[in-house]
Amino acid sequence: MAPDAAQRKTATRSPDGPAKVTITEIAREAGVSVPTVSRVVNGRSDVSPATRAKVEDLLHRHGYRRKPPAPGDRAALIDLVFNDLDSPWAVEIIRGVEEVAHESGVGTVVSALHDRVGSAQQWMTNLRARASDGVLLVTSVLEPVFHEELRRLGVPLVVIDPAGSPASQEPTIGATNWAGGMAATEHLLTLGHRRIGFIEGPPRLLCSRARLDGYRAALDVAGVAVDDALIVPGDFYHESGFTGCNQLLDLADPPTAVFAASDQMALGAIEALRRRGLRVPEDMSVVGFDDLPEVRWSSPPLTTVRQPLADMGKLGARTVLDLARSVAPAAPRVELATELVVRASTAAPRGV
Amino acid sequence: MAPDAAQRKTATRSPDGPAKVTITEIAREAGVSVPTVSRVVNGRSDVSPATRAKVEDLLHRHGYRRKPPAPGDRAALIDLVFNDLDSPWAVEIIRGVEEVAHESGVGTVVSALHDRVGSAQQWMTNLRARASDGVLLVTSVLEPVFHEELRRLGVPLVVIDPAGSPASQEPTIGATNWAGGMAATEHLLTLGHRRIGFIEGPPRLLCSRARLDGYRAALDVAGVAVDDALIVPGDFYHESGFTGCNQLLDLADPPTAVFAASDQMALGAIEALRRRGLRVPEDMSVVGFDDLPEVRWSSPPLTTVRQPLADMGKLGARTVLDLARSVAPAAPRVELATELVVRASTAAPRGV
Repeated sequence: MAPDAAQRKTATRSPDGPAKVTITEIAREAGVSVPTVSRVVNGRSDVSPATRAKVEDLLHRHGYRRKPPAPGDRAALIDLVFNDLDSPWAVEIIRGVEEVAHESGVGTVVSALHDRVGSAQQWMTNLRARASDGVLLVTSVLEPVFHEELRRLGVPLVVIDPAGSPASQEPTIGATNWAGGMAATEHLLTLGHRRIGFIEGPPRLLCSRARLDGYRAALDVAGVAVDDALIVPGDFYHESGFTGCNQLLDLADPPTAVFAASDQMALGAIEALRRRGLRVPEDMSVVGFDDLPEVRWSSPPLTTVRQPLADMGKLGARTVLDLARSVAPAAPRVELATELVVRASTAAPRGV
Repeated sequence: MAPDAAQRKTATRSPDGPAKVTITEIAREAGVSVPTVSRVVNGRSDVSPATRAKVEDLLHRHGYRRKPPAPGDRAALIDLVFNDLDSPWAVEIIRGVEEVAHESGVGTVVSALHDRVGSAQQWMTNLRARASDGVLLVTSVLEPVFHEELRRLGVPLVVIDPAGSPASQEPTIGATNWAGGMAATEHLLTLGHRRIGFIEGPPRLLCSRARLDGYRAALDVAGVAVDDALIVPGDFYHESGFTGCNQLLDLADPPTAVFAASDQMALGAIEALRRRGLRVPEDMSVVGFDDLPEVRWSSPPLTTVRQPLADMGKLGARTVLDLARSVAPAAPRVELATELVVRASTAAPRGV
């Protein structure tokens, strides 16, 4: 790109921002050429790391804001950001987002941050370069500095399955985790279970807390005292369901049913029971949470709480595409309904 | 974008193509303005469908070729294209591609074509607009017209897990499906099984044929005659494993072991056995193919053939990024090794 074209594209000041700095001034202060500053602003890779750091620092200090792209200049991309891509759970969200984006002529850029140092910074640099129209953040936490940068770039952010406390102004799309936790527990109570174990998700995630509170609420409504010994920790992955179920089976007075806060943990629990020669549901009922496609085919097929993951992805994509066209969402915080799906892993306890 | 900038970006003729048409000539012939033709070439959305169709038709007839982007103008995107996003299998490939792309500062645009009419055309329009650096096509078939268009656009294509016969010039990355089919069957033979059922994948996919041929070869090497009644159809999804296993169990002389050509079918087979009150591996051994993360946690954990899906994604991403920089791959067709993983779903047949 010729320098004049680069300048035409980038030398724009924020019309309402506090600082009215131009890239010419940034270039002078950094002691580099104007095209070099343009390259940094456009996120291009042909700039040395030291120069990039110096220029980015000045851009940040002066509150430089790139002009939002005109409608015809939009990249027609949305960024879908996970912490990890290590679960069939992720593909359900991707499927929903991709379907809506594809129909709108928009590409879905999938990224994983992996909690790695520098990974979010690298992603932000890439995002700036590709001029995405918006960001969908899934069960992940971005440092406040990145939220600020997205606002400065004029890139809308929507959070799917919000992880922490909903601090910021961004729209969120979740599922009715509390109601789902309650429905699963009520199902087991109705079958006649009174000692019901619970394998938790990571407590730092809001959805984990909501599912646990739904479990407690159902017991409370039924007049069954909550026994904290029946609540064991987990992290949503298979292995913690295996370990948690063993912990419950080792109790002096073990439960007759287990409610795991994720399908993967429920499958781990079923495997723990199998290894002890216990049958599901004859010896122990198991309920999961998610309704991943494969649990229709677990042995036995899993009773679980359906999260509408693909629908959450679809609504997230619609919301972020609306925001990119400056259309505000009808409601800033939405929870889609969960639904109990009864299959073959639950039955009345022995002797009932 | 001002018309002059649009023209600078797009009014480039193919240096070596048969037709030396300019967008000015296309505009004259179509009876529209030059900026309108530019908008069509750049895949922008602000053109009426009728005008777009007329201009695209003329561009195609004249063999108009857009100038390949200069290195600094690259979009820093690769397109990863599936037919469907309905399996945990897909997320493994995405994980590998994303990891390499992310490190290279490149975004991964994930699309699904769904065998729908018009879907590939829509994807191609989007791809042209976002000026992707390259395309990774996974177990999908694109019409020849799209292969031609990618060549015309100068966008490299790499095929992961090639579906049909490797007709074209594109590099392919597969797994050693034949060797994997042989290893799984040899494992069952070594345990003492002689009647081994096989649940096929879709015959239109090369990988299905290779796995079946590996099964036949292992039997042949061991001097065991192939009984065609023991080979039943499947489509890689759970339900066909369930149906296929029932079909095998209904034989007058049923097998003592089942080798399913995918993990999902193996899980379906295990469920069919469970419903008949048969235990795995005591009453029947089951082997899968893929080694999806969840089969470590099936009941019982599945013996299977590991496909290095994430590694295939990584190598695919490296290859396409190399091609985008005009670096030819070391070998045009690569198969990564599969590996037998023995877990708890296989044992000697009764009485051996």
